[in-house]
Amino acid sequence: MTEDSRSNKIEDIKITGLDGKPITGWLDGHTILVGLMAYPIRHSMSPTMHNNSFAKLGLNGAYLCFEIGNDKLEGAVNAIRTLDMRGSNVSMPNKKEVIKYLDKLSPASEMCDAVNTIVNDHGTLTGYTTDGIGFVQSLKDEGISIKDKVMTLAGAGGAATPIAVQSALDGVKEIRIFNIQDDKWAQAEKNVKTIQEKTDCKVSLTDLADQDAFKKSIAESDIYCDATGVGMKPLEDMTLVEDPSWFHKDMVVFDTVYAPRTTKLMKVAQKAGVKHVFDGIGMMIEQGAASFKLWTGKDMPTDYIREIMFSDEEKNK
Amino acid sequence: MTEDSRSNKIEDIKITGLDGKPITGWLDGHTILVGLMAYPIRHSMSPTMHNNSFAKLGLNGAYLCFEIGNDKLEGAVNAIRTLDMRGSNVSMPNKKEVIKYLDKLSPASEMCDAVNTIVNDHGTLTGYTTDGIGFVQSLKDEGISIKDKVMTLAGAGGAATPIAVQSALDGVKEIRIFNIQDDKWAQAEKNVKTIQEKTDCKVSLTDLADQDAFKKSIAESDIYCDATGVGMKPLEDMTLVEDPSWFHKDMVVFDTVYAPRTTKLMKVAQKAGVKHVFDGIGMMIEQGAASFKLWTGKDMPTDYIREIMFSDEEKNK
Repeated sequence: MTEDSRSNKIEDIKITGLDGKPITGWLDGHTILVGLMAYPIRHSMSPTMHNNSFAKLGLNGAYLCFEIGNDKLEGAVNAIRTLDMRGSNVSMPNKKEVIKYLDKLSPASEMCDAVNTIVNDHGTLTGYTTDGIGFVQSLKDEGISIKDKVMTLAGAGGAATPIAVQSALDGVKEIRIFNIQDDKWAQAEKNVKTIQEKTDCKVSLTDLADQDAFKKSIAESDIYCDATGVGMKPLEDMTLVEDPSWFHKDMVVFDTVYAPRTTKLMKVAQKAGVKHVFDGIGMMIEQGAASFKLWTGKDMPTDYIREIMFSDEEKNK
Repeated sequence: MTEDSRSNKIEDIKITGLDGKPITGWLDGHTILVGLMAYPIRHSMSPTMHNNSFAKLGLNGAYLCFEIGNDKLEGAVNAIRTLDMRGSNVSMPNKKEVIKYLDKLSPASEMCDAVNTIVNDHGTLTGYTTDGIGFVQSLKDEGISIKDKVMTLAGAGGAATPIAVQSALDGVKEIRIFNIQDDKWAQAEKNVKTIQEKTDCKVSLTDLADQDAFKKSIAESDIYCDATGVGMKPLEDMTLVEDPSWFHKDMVVFDTVYAPRTTKLMKVAQKAGVKHVFDGIGMMIEQGAASFKLWTGKDMPTDYIREIMFSDEEKNK
C-alpha cells in the first residue's frame, strides 16, 4: 500500500442528482455513519447502493469507504465503537481476520469463518455474512426456491463458502462442491465438514480435474453455480463449462460474476437453452439489502437500486 | 450521557434538495470523511455548512458529527488516523483536552491552549484554532480592519480567548479585557500574560464589577466585542451594556451570539446609532471557512452558505 493510495485528499468531482439545490435534513448532525473496511476499496459500488437507498427512503445514514488492511483492522473496529457507527461492511483482506475483534457471530458467519457485515448495538459488535443470503434471496426474487434441490457448486473461496453454508441452512438437499487442488482445497474440506455437522444437507467434495464426475454432477443437478470468479474481467474468455450439452433446459445456471454482465458461462448456458441463467448482480444487490436491513430495519429499494446502477449496462448488453 | 443520546439508530428524515434523483459522483468509494467531535453535538449547523460547500464546489468530502466526550476522545483521535479522515472539528468539552493527543499545534492554538480544527497529513495531526480567524475575517468582509485599533473585549472563555489571541497576532493595538471574577478569571490572566509575551499588543484585565472603568474603556474603543454569550437564548433579555450612551456612532459593536439574530446588545447599539453592529453569524461562517480551507485548500462559498442557511431568518428578523 503506497502512501498515495491511502491519500485522504478531498478530490474534485462531478456530482449529479443535486441540480445545484442545497441539501437539508440529510448529512446533518444526526447522520449516522456506516463503513466499508477493505483494501483496495475506492472503486466499490456499495456506497452508491447504500447512500441512494438512504436518500430514497429518507433515512439519516451515510455509507463511506475506508482503506483498511489487516494492519489497521483492530483500530478500525475500535473506531466503530468509539464513533458509534451503526456498523460496517468488511471485505478483503479482512473477512476472516476481523472475527477476533468482534463480540458475537451469526450462525452462518461462524460456519463460514468469515464476516462481511458488522452491526454495532451500543458497543456490542456482531458479525454476519450476507453473501449467502444474497444468493438465496436473488433466486427467490426470480421465483426459485432452493429447498430440496441438488446443487453443483464450483469453488470454495470467499464467494462459494457463504453460498454453500446459507444454501445448506436454507434447506438445499445436496451440494456437490468441485474445486481444483489449490490453496482453497483446505477450505473446501472444512466446508464439507462444517455443513455435515451443522445441517441435514448432504455434501461432497470432488477434484475439478475429474471432468467426468463434474459433467455427471451438473447433469444430475437442479442448480449449477460458479462461484470461482472464472469469467470475470480480465479473464472474461474463460469458463469451467464450455460444452452446452452439459446443461439441461430446466436447471438454473448461476454465475456470481457481474462484470462482464454476460459471462462466457452464461453464453454457453443460453446456447444450451437453459431457462434460468443469472449473473451476479441480483446476489450483489441482495447481499447489500440484507446488510442494509440489519443496520436500518428497513427493506432496501432493490428495484430502484438495480435501475439506477445497472439500467445503462442492461441496455448495452 | 444517557445511552439514548448516544444512540446510533438511523432515523427517518425528510431530505430536501435531491428531488428524488439518484446521486452519483459524491458519497462514493472515494469520499473522504471530516468529523466534528463534541458533546452534545446533534444540533450543530456545521454539517449543513460543510456538506453544502462540498456539494457546491464539487468536492468529494463528507462532514459528520460524532458524540465524543473526554472519555472517548483518545479513541476518536486514533480513529482520525486509522480511518484516514482528512481531519475534524473539535468542540466542547474537548477543545483543551484534545491537545495531548495531537502531534503539532499552530501558534494561535498554542497561545489559546485550545483547538477547534485538526488536520491529518498522512498520520501527523496538527491542531488549529479558527475561531479568532473567523472574528477577524468577518470584520474584513465588512471592510473593517482591526489593525492599530483599540478593542474592549468582554469575556475570557472559549469564544473570547481566540478572539483576543488572533486580534493580537493580526495587529490590534490594544485589548482591554473585562470579566467577572468567576472560573474564567484565571484564563483571563493567562491570556494577558500570553499576549504580552508573544505579541506587541497592549493588553489589560479589569473586573467587570468596575462599571466606571468598563464604561470609560468602551468610550475610548474602536471595537466593543461581547464574547461572553450573555444575550444568547435562553438569556436573550440580558446584555452587559444597557445604556446606549456608552457607545459612540463610529465604533464597531460585535456580539458573538447568533441566536437570537438581533441580541439585546445589538438593539442597544442600534438605538445609539452605531454604524457597524454585527451578530456572530459572519464569525461562525468564517471560522468554518478557515477550517474548510485547511482541509481542502479551497475557499468556502460563504455567500452561498449564508444565503441557504440564514436567508429565511434574515427575512424574519
